[in-house]
Amino acid sequence: MSTQPLTVINGPNLNLLGTREPEIYGHETLADIEAQCAETAREFGLTVDCFQSNSEGAIVDKLHSVRGSTAGIVLNAGAYTHTSVAIRDALANVPAPFIEVHISNVHAREAFRHHSYLSDVAAAVIVGCGSQGYEFAIRRLATLVGASRGSD
Amino acid sequence: MSTQPLTVINGPNLNLLGTREPEIYGHETLADIEAQCAETAREFGLTVDCFQSNSEGAIVDKLHSVRGSTAGIVLNAGAYTHTSVAIRDALANVPAPFIEVHISNVHAREAFRHHSYLSDVAAAVIVGCGSQGYEFAIRRLATLVGASRGSD
Amino acid sequence: MSTQPLTVINGPNLNLLGTREPEIYGHETLADIEAQCAETAREFGLTVDCFQSNSEGAIVDKLHSVRGSTAGIVLNAGAYTHTSVAIRDALANVPAPFIEVHISNVHAREAFRHHSYLSDVAAAVIVGCGSQGYEFAIRRLATLVGASRGSD
Amino acid sequence: MSTQPLTVINGPNLNLLGTREPEIYGHETLADIEAQCAETAREFGLTVDCFQSNSEGAIVDKLHSVRGSTAGIVLNAGAYTHTSVAIRDALANVPAPFIEVHISNVHAREAFRHHSYLSDVAAAVIVGCGSQGYEFAIRRLATLVGASRGSD
Amino acid sequence: MSTQPLTVINGPNLNLLGTREPEIYGHETLADIEAQCAETAREFGLTVDCFQSNSEGAIVDKLHSVRGSTAGIVLNAGAYTHTSVAIRDALANVPAPFIEVHISNVHAREAFRHHSYLSDVAAAVIVGCGSQGYEFAIRRLATLVGASRGSD
Amino acid sequence: MSTQPLTVINGPNLNLLGTREPEIYGHETLADIEAQCAETAREFGLTVDCFQSNSEGAIVDKLHSVRGSTAGIVLNAGAYTHTSVAIRDALANVPAPFIEVHISNVHAREAFRHHSYLSDVAAAVIVGCGSQGYEFAIRRLATLVGASRGSD
Amino acid sequence: MSTQPLTVINGPNLNLLGTREPEIYGHETLADIEAQCAETAREFGLTVDCFQSNSEGAIVDKLHSVRGSTAGIVLNAGAYTHTSVAIRDALANVPAPFIEVHISNVHAREAFRHHSYLSDVAAAVIVGCGSQGYEFAIRRLATLVGASRGSD
Amino acid sequence: MSTQPLTVINGPNLNLLGTREPEIYGHETLADIEAQCAETAREFGLTVDCFQSNSEGAIVDKLHSVRGSTAGIVLNAGAYTHTSVAIRDALANVPAPFIEVHISNVHAREAFRHHSYLSDVAAAVIVGCGSQGYEFAIRRLATLVGASRGSD
Amino acid sequence: MSTQPLTVINGPNLNLLGTREPEIYGHETLADIEAQCAETAREFGLTVDCFQSNSEGAIVDKLHSVRGSTAGIVLNAGAYTHTSVAIRDALANVPAPFIEVHISNVHAREAFRHHSYLSDVAAAVIVGCGSQGYEFAIRRLATLVGASRGSD
Amino acid sequence: MSTQPLTVINGPNLNLLGTREPEIYGHETLADIEAQCAETAREFGLTVDCFQSNSEGAIVDKLHSVRGSTAGIVLNAGAYTHTSVAIRDALANVPAPFIEVHISNVHAREAFRHHSYLSDVAAAVIVGCGSQGYEFAIRRLATLVGASRGSD
Amino acid sequence: MSTQPLTVINGPNLNLLGTREPEIYGHETLADIEAQCAETAREFGLTVDCFQSNSEGAIVDKLHSVRGSTAGIVLNAGAYTHTSVAIRDALANVPAPFIEVHISNVHAREAFRHHSYLSDVAAAVIVGCGSQGYEFAIRRLATLVGASRGSD
Amino acid sequence: MSTQPLTVINGPNLNLLGTREPEIYGHETLADIEAQCAETAREFGLTVDCFQSNSEGAIVDKLHSVRGSTAGIVLNAGAYTHTSVAIRDALANVPAPFIEVHISNVHAREAFRHHSYLSDVAAAVIVGCGSQGYEFAIRRLATLVGASRGSD
Repeated sequence: MSTQPLTVINGPNLNLLGTREPEIYGHETLADIEAQCAETAREFGLTVDCFQSNSEGAIVDKLHSVRGSTAGIVLNAGAYTHTSVAIRDALANVPAPFIEVHISNVHAREAFRHHSYLSDVAAAVIVGCGSQGYEFAIRRLATLVGASRGSD
Repeated sequence: MSTQPLTVINGPNLNLLGTREPEIYGHETLADIEAQCAETAREFGLTVDCFQSNSEGAIVDKLHSVRGSTAGIVLNAGAYTHTSVAIRDALANVPAPFIEVHISNVHAREAFRHHSYLSDVAAAVIVGCGSQGYEFAIRRLATLVGASRGSD
Repeated sequence: MSTQPLTVINGPNLNLLGTREPEIYGHETLADIEAQCAETAREFGLTVDCFQSNSEGAIVDKLHSVRGSTAGIVLNAGAYTHTSVAIRDALANVPAPFIEVHISNVHAREAFRHHSYLSDVAAAVIVGCGSQGYEFAIRRLATLVGASRGSD
Repeated sequence: MSTQPLTVINGPNLNLLGTREPEIYGHETLADIEAQCAETAREFGLTVDCFQSNSEGAIVDKLHSVRGSTAGIVLNAGAYTHTSVAIRDALANVPAPFIEVHISNVHAREAFRHHSYLSDVAAAVIVGCGSQGYEFAIRRLATLVGASRGSD
Repeated sequence: MSTQPLTVINGPNLNLLGTREPEIYGHETLADIEAQCAETAREFGLTVDCFQSNSEGAIVDKLHSVRGSTAGIVLNAGAYTHTSVAIRDALANVPAPFIEVHISNVHAREAFRHHSYLSDVAAAVIVGCGSQGYEFAIRRLATLVGASRGSD
Repeated sequence: MSTQPLTVINGPNLNLLGTREPEIYGHETLADIEAQCAETAREFGLTVDCFQSNSEGAIVDKLHSVRGSTAGIVLNAGAYTHTSVAIRDALANVPAPFIEVHISNVHAREAFRHHSYLSDVAAAVIVGCGSQGYEFAIRRLATLVGASRGSD
Repeated sequence: MSTQPLTVINGPNLNLLGTREPEIYGHETLADIEAQCAETAREFGLTVDCFQSNSEGAIVDKLHSVRGSTAGIVLNAGAYTHTSVAIRDALANVPAPFIEVHISNVHAREAFRHHSYLSDVAAAVIVGCGSQGYEFAIRRLATLVGASRGSD
Repeated sequence: MSTQPLTVINGPNLNLLGTREPEIYGHETLADIEAQCAETAREFGLTVDCFQSNSEGAIVDKLHSVRGSTAGIVLNAGAYTHTSVAIRDALANVPAPFIEVHISNVHAREAFRHHSYLSDVAAAVIVGCGSQGYEFAIRRLATLVGASRGSD
Repeated sequence: MSTQPLTVINGPNLNLLGTREPEIYGHETLADIEAQCAETAREFGLTVDCFQSNSEGAIVDKLHSVRGSTAGIVLNAGAYTHTSVAIRDALANVPAPFIEVHISNVHAREAFRHHSYLSDVAAAVIVGCGSQGYEFAIRRLATLVGASRGSD
Repeated sequence: MSTQPLTVINGPNLNLLGTREPEIYGHETLADIEAQCAETAREFGLTVDCFQSNSEGAIVDKLHSVRGSTAGIVLNAGAYTHTSVAIRDALANVPAPFIEVHISNVHAREAFRHHSYLSDVAAAVIVGCGSQGYEFAIRRLATLVGASRGSD
Repeated sequence: MSTQPLTVINGPNLNLLGTREPEIYGHETLADIEAQCAETAREFGLTVDCFQSNSEGAIVDKLHSVRGSTAGIVLNAGAYTHTSVAIRDALANVPAPFIEVHISNVHAREAFRHHSYLSDVAAAVIVGCGSQGYEFAIRRLATLVGASRGSD
Repeated sequence: MSTQPLTVINGPNLNLLGTREPEIYGHETLADIEAQCAETAREFGLTVDCFQSNSEGAIVDKLHSVRGSTAGIVLNAGAYTHTSVAIRDALANVPAPFIEVHISNVHAREAFRHHSYLSDVAAAVIVGCGSQGYEFAIRRLATLVGASRGSD
C-alpha cells in the first residue's frame, strides 16, 4: 500500500468557491472541499496535500514538485482545462495517475468548455457531481493505488 | 426520502462485459456490476432496476416505462451515446435526473467518441472509472434524491 | 382517384404526445392526432393507416410493408429525422410521395435538429404547425394523389 | 377575434410566378396565389393585405408599416431568405407571428438554400407544397389568431 | 481645422429606435440620437449631416454623395454590417475615416452578428455603449480631424 | 442573326469608375466603358442597352424587364457578386446567356471575393482584364448569338 | 483448415434486392445472392450462415451470437454503415475478420455515404462490384482462413 | 452615486506603451493613459485604481481583490483577450460591469485577434480609438454607475 | 466478346512491391502480380497489358495511348490516388471502365488516404485484399466486358 | 514594342482536344487553337511559342526555359491548376505576366475545380469562353505588352 | 560585430530535461544544453544569457528586460508555443531576431502541436534536432548578427 | 562509422537558386549550396551525392535508387512538400533518416505552405536558415549516423 500522499490541485477562480455563483457551484468553500478530501482519503489510510493557484505557471511548478512523491492527483484545472498545454505536459512528467474533476457540468455550458487538453491523458474524468466529484476521485485513486479501506 | 427505485440501463455490447477486451473493460461481468449497483443502493436504502439492450428502440421503450416510477437513472448508453437523438429525447421525458457513465476513458479513444448526445442534458458524467463509475453514479443519485446512508 | 390508403407514421417518443412537455407539443395525444388525420382524409374520400414505433428497424419494416399499397405517407420521424439513413433508404423504395412533418419548430432548437436526412427526398416539409401540420400534410397528399374533396 | 388583416409578403422574383420555370413553380401567377390567400382568409372571417417587392429595403419598409396593424404575416422572402438579416430584424419588430413559406422544396436545391435567416424566429415553416403552402399558412395563422371558420 | 460636416448614417430598422425592444435599445428615438450627435459635434465646432435608410443601395448612394464633402462618418449599418460588401466598397471610395457603432453588444447575440464586413476597414469600432456610442464616435472623429473643443 | 440588343449591367460602386482607386481600376469612366461596349457590339452588327445601379432590387427589376428582349447579358455585379442570391435567381429567369465580368482580379483580393453566387450559372467568367474584359464579353456573346462581324 | 462457417450479414433494405431500383442494384434477389455465396464457399470447402435484418440491434445480437463460431464475416451493413457505432463495436468483439461489401459504388452517391464507421476496422472493403462483390468477399475470407479450393 | 473607485486593468506588453511600435500605439505611455483615466473619472466625481501585469494569474488575482469594492472595470487584456478563459471566469465573479478596450483596431490585424473570450460578457467593447478608448470607457462606466458629471 | 486486352496500371512506389514493408504489402513482387493478372485474364479468354510508372505524366500518357484499344483498366494509382486530378481527367477520356485497387486498407491509414480523386468515377473499388484485389478486378472487368470463362 | 514571343502552354489531357467530350470542349483540336493563337498574335505583330505536356515537371522546365525570353504567357494548366504549387512557383520566377485560361466553366463543375493555385498570381483569368478564351488572352497580353495592332 | 549577448529562453517543463521521457528528449539536462549554447557562442566571440520559466508572464517579463540589450534570441517556448499570444507580442517588441527551437519533432505529435503562434514571426524554426537544435540556432544567430568565428 | 554517402535532394525550381528572388533566397546558386554540403560532410568524413529535379516522378526514382546505399537524406522538396504523397511514400521505403529543409520561412508565407506531407515522417525540420539550413542538416545527419568530426 502506498504511503505517498494524494495531491489535490485546484486551478483559477476555485479559491472563490462558496462565494461564487452558489446556485451553480454550491455553498461549500474550497476549505470545506479540501477537508472533505482529507476525510475521504483517511478512510483509505491515505493523506492529501492540497494546493490552489490562479497561475498556470504555479500549477506547473506544483506538479513538478510532487513528481516523485505523489500517489495520485485530483485536478480541477478550472479554466486552464481548456487552454493549457503546459499543465498537460507537466502531468506527463508525473508517473502517478490523475483524475480530472469539474464541479459543474461543463458539457452544458459554452462550447469552448467542451474541449479539455487534459481528458485524453487523464485516468478518469468526473463532471457535474458538485463537491462530491472530489470524493469520487479520491475513492478512485484509492482503488488505483491499492489502498485498503479503513476498519470503519 | 424517495421510495422509488433507481434504474440502471446499459446499452449495446455491454452484455459482453467481462468477456470483451478485458484489458480495457476489466473482468467483471454485467451481472457483477448490476449486483454491485444493488449493493451500493442498499447502503442508501434504495433499490435498483437493471436493464440492458442492444436495441436503441428498446432503450427508448424502457425509459418510457420508468417515466413516473424512477428516482434516477444510471445510463451507460455505449455506442448509442454518440449516435442516438432518440434516447436523448426519451430522457427529456423522464422527470428524474440521469447520470452518464462510461467504463473506459472515451476521450482517449476515436474522435467520434468525444461527442455525446447525452452529456449536456445529464446531471453528471463519469468516465474512465471502470465499474466503480456505476457505484459513484448510484452515490450521486442518492445525494440528489436525498437518500440517507444506512447505519452501516 | 386513388383508393389506396394514406399512411401516417410517427417515430420515437411521439407515443408520449399530450403527456410530454405540453407547453411545446400541446395537449393532444397521438390518438387525437391520428383521429384528426382520419377525419381530414375522409373529407377527400381517403383513408389512413396509422403506425408509431420507437424502433428504427420497425419503421423501416413498416415502410416496406406499404410499398405497393400506400397512396402517400405522412412521416414525423422524430429523432430519427436527424440520424437515420435507413429510413431515408426505405422511403426511396416506396413509389408514393411522403411529407415530412414536425410539430415544433426544429429550426429554433438545437443545431443537430437543423439537419434532416429526409427533407431533400421529401415532397414537402411542414414544421412548427403543431398537430395542424398533419392536417396540412393530408391535404397536400390529397392534392398530389388527385383526391376530390367530399361534398361537405 | 382579430379584426386586423393578415399580410402576405412575397420577395424577389416571385412577381414572375407562372412565367418562371413552371415545371418547378407551377402555372399559377402571383395574382392567382394572392386571390387564393384572400379566399382562404375569408373562410375564417379574415382579410389579407398583399405585397411583393424585389427590394430588400422595400420589404423592410413594408414590415415596419404593418407593425401595429397586422394579425399575422405569410412571408415567402425568396432569395432574401438566405441572405437578409435586415428582414429578420424587421420581423423582430412586429409583434404578430409570421410563417415562412417556400413553393419548391428548398432542401432539394443548392446547399446555400438550406440555410434560412428567418426559420428560427418563424412560428412555422412550410416548404414544397406549391401554392397550397400559402393556403396552409393562412389556415395556421387563423388558428394562431383564434379566427373562427365561417359558416361555410 | 476641417469645416466639412460629419456624416451620421443609420441603417435598416434603426428608424424604429425608441419603439423597438426598448429594454435592449433604450427609449431614445433616432431623432434624439441625431440631436445628441449634433450637440456633441457643436462642442468641437463641427456640424453633422444625418441619414437613415432601410435600403442597402440608398446607403451606398448616400456614401457616394458625401465622398468629397464629409470630414468623417459615424456608421451604424445595422443588419447590413453582417451582409453588405457593397457598403464596404462604397466606404473604400470615401477618403474620410469612418467609425462603426452598434448600440447593443453584438458579441453577446447570434453568431452571425459576430462578423462584420466593415470592422477591418473602420477607423474604430464601438459596441454596446447604447446611444452614448454615437457621442464617443463624434468625439473620436473630432480628434482624428483635429477639431478643437469649444470654449465651453 | 439576333436583332435583339445585348444588355450591359454594372452593379454597386461601378458608377464611380475612373474616380475610384484608379491604380486598381484604371482611368476610364463607366461612360467610357459603355461607349466601348457599344463600339465593339457595332462591329458585330449588335446594339447594347446599358444600366447601372447601386440597388440589388433595381438590378433584379432590370433583369426582369429584359427577359424577353435581350440577346445576352454582360454583368459586372460588383459587390453583389458575393452576396446576392436574388440576382442569381433573376438571371435564371432570363433565357439568354450572361457573362460575368470583373475589372480587377478578384482572386487576388479578400477571401470573401473568391466566391461568386453567379459563376456556376454564367456562360463565362472574365476577371482581371480591366475594361477590356467588357470587350471580350461582347465578343463572346456575339459568338454565342451567332452575330457576324461587320465588314470592317 | 477451418470448419467454422462463414457468416453473411445484410443490413436494412437489402431484403428488397431485385425489387428495388434494379437499374442500380440489379435483378438478383437476396436469396439469389445468398445462394451464390453458399456456392462460392462450397468451392473452398466452406459453408455459410446468412442473416438479414432491418434492425441495428438485431444485427448486433447476430454478431454476438457468432462470436465464437464464425470463421469470417461478409457484411453489407447498408445504411447502418454510415450511422452505426454499435455495429462497429460488436464487430470489435468478434475475433474473426470481416469484409465490408457494397453493391453500388457508394463513392459516387451522396456525401454522407462516403464515410463508413466500419471500413477502418475491416479486413477489406469491396464496393461497386454488384452481387459479385459478395463472391469476392467469400474468396478473400477463404484465403484469410486458409481454406483450400475444391478439386474442381 | 457610487463612492467605489473604478478599476483600470492593462494586460501583457501594455507596460511598454509609448516605446512599442508608436506608429501603431501612439507615443503616450501607460502612465499617461492612467493619468488621463484619473482625470476623466474626476470629471464625474470618481476615482480610479490602476493595475498592469504581464501575468494571467496576477490579473485574475487583481480581479478577485476588487470583487466587492469596484464600481466598474476598464479592461485592456491585450493578448490574453484571445487566450484566457481564466480572466473571463474571474470577471464573472465581479458584480460590477466591465468594458473591453483595445488601442488598435484588432479586426484589422491577424485572424486570431478577431476572437475575444471577453466580448460577449462585457458591457461594451471599444476598439481602435487609441488612448481615447480608455476615456470613453470611463465615461460609459460613469453613465452605468450613475455618476454625475462635475460642475466643471 | 471483347478481343481488346485489359490494361493493368500501377502507380508510384509499386515497383518496390515485395521489397517494401512486406508485413503490410506481402512478399509478392509486381512481376508476380502482373503474372497473376495475366493468368486470371486467360481464364476468361482475355489478355493483359501491364504498366508501372512513378510519374503522374507518364500514367496520363499511358492512359491516352490505350484510349481506343483497352477493354477495361485495373488501376492502383498509389499515392496519386489522393493527389492527381490529371489522372482522373485522363480516365474520363477512356471509354472503357476502370477498377480502383489498393493492396492495403487505405481506410485504416492516414486521413489523407481516405479521399480518392478516382473512386467516384470508378466502376468499382477494391481495397485491402492484398494482391488478390487485382484478381478480383480482372474478374469484375471480365463480367463487365462479357468475357466467358474458359473451359477450365 | 516587345519583340519577344508570347508563350502558350497547355497542360494535361489538352492534347486530346477535339477528340475529348466535344459537347463540352468543342471540335477544335489543340493544333487548331495554337494556329488561332498565332493568327491573333500576328494581328498585333507578335509571335507565339506553343507547348503542351502531360507532365507537371515538364511544364516547370518549359517555364524555366522561357524566363528571360517571353513577353507573356497564356496558360491552361488543366488539372494541374488545382493541384500544382510547383507550376505556381515556376510562374513566380518569370518576370512576364501570365493569363489563366479554361475552355469550360470550371465553376460549374466539381467543387475541387473551384480552387486554383494560379489565379491569385495571374494577371487575368478567363473561363468558359471555349477556344475563344485563348484569343482573348492573346489580346490582353498584347495590351499589357503594348503591342500595336497591325494595319489590317 | 555585436557585443551584445544572445539570450536563450526555455519555457515550461524544460527545466525537467534529462529527467523527462529521456527516450524522447535525451539524457542531457537543461544545464548541459545551456553550457553547450555558451560553448557554441564562444566559438563566435559571443556570450549567452540563459533563462527558464514555467510562467508565461515571467517569459514576457524576461523578453521585456532584454529588449535593448540582446543581439538575438533562441526560444524554445515549449507548450506556450501553441497557446501564447502574449509571448508573440512580447517578441514583436524586441528588435533582435529570434529562432524557434523544439527538441522533438512536434509535427509527429498531437495535432495541437502543429500550430505555433511564433513561427510566422520567427527568423527560423528548427525542430527535431534534439539539443543540437540549440547549437544550430546559435550558429544561425551568429550569422545574422555578423559574428566572426573565433580562431579556434 | 558509415561509409555510405549522404544524399542531398532538391525539388522543383531550386535549380534557379541565386537567380530567383535573391532578396528572399539569397545570391548563392544551387551549385554553391551543393559544394557547401560536400564541404561540411567532409568535416565529418562523409561524402554527398546531390540531385535536383523539377519532376515528382524523378525524385521518387532517385529515392528508390539510393534505398540501400544512402546513410541519410537532406531533402528540400520545394513545392512538392505541400502536394506530394508519392515522395512521402518513397521516403518510407528508405531505411535511412531524412531531414526536411526549407531556405525561407514557409510559416510566414501563404497558408498552403504551412502544411507538409513530409514533416511528420522526417527526423528533423529546419526552416528559414537560408543555405545554412543545409549545413545544419548535414551536421545533424552526421550525428545520427555517428560520423566523427575530422581532426580539424
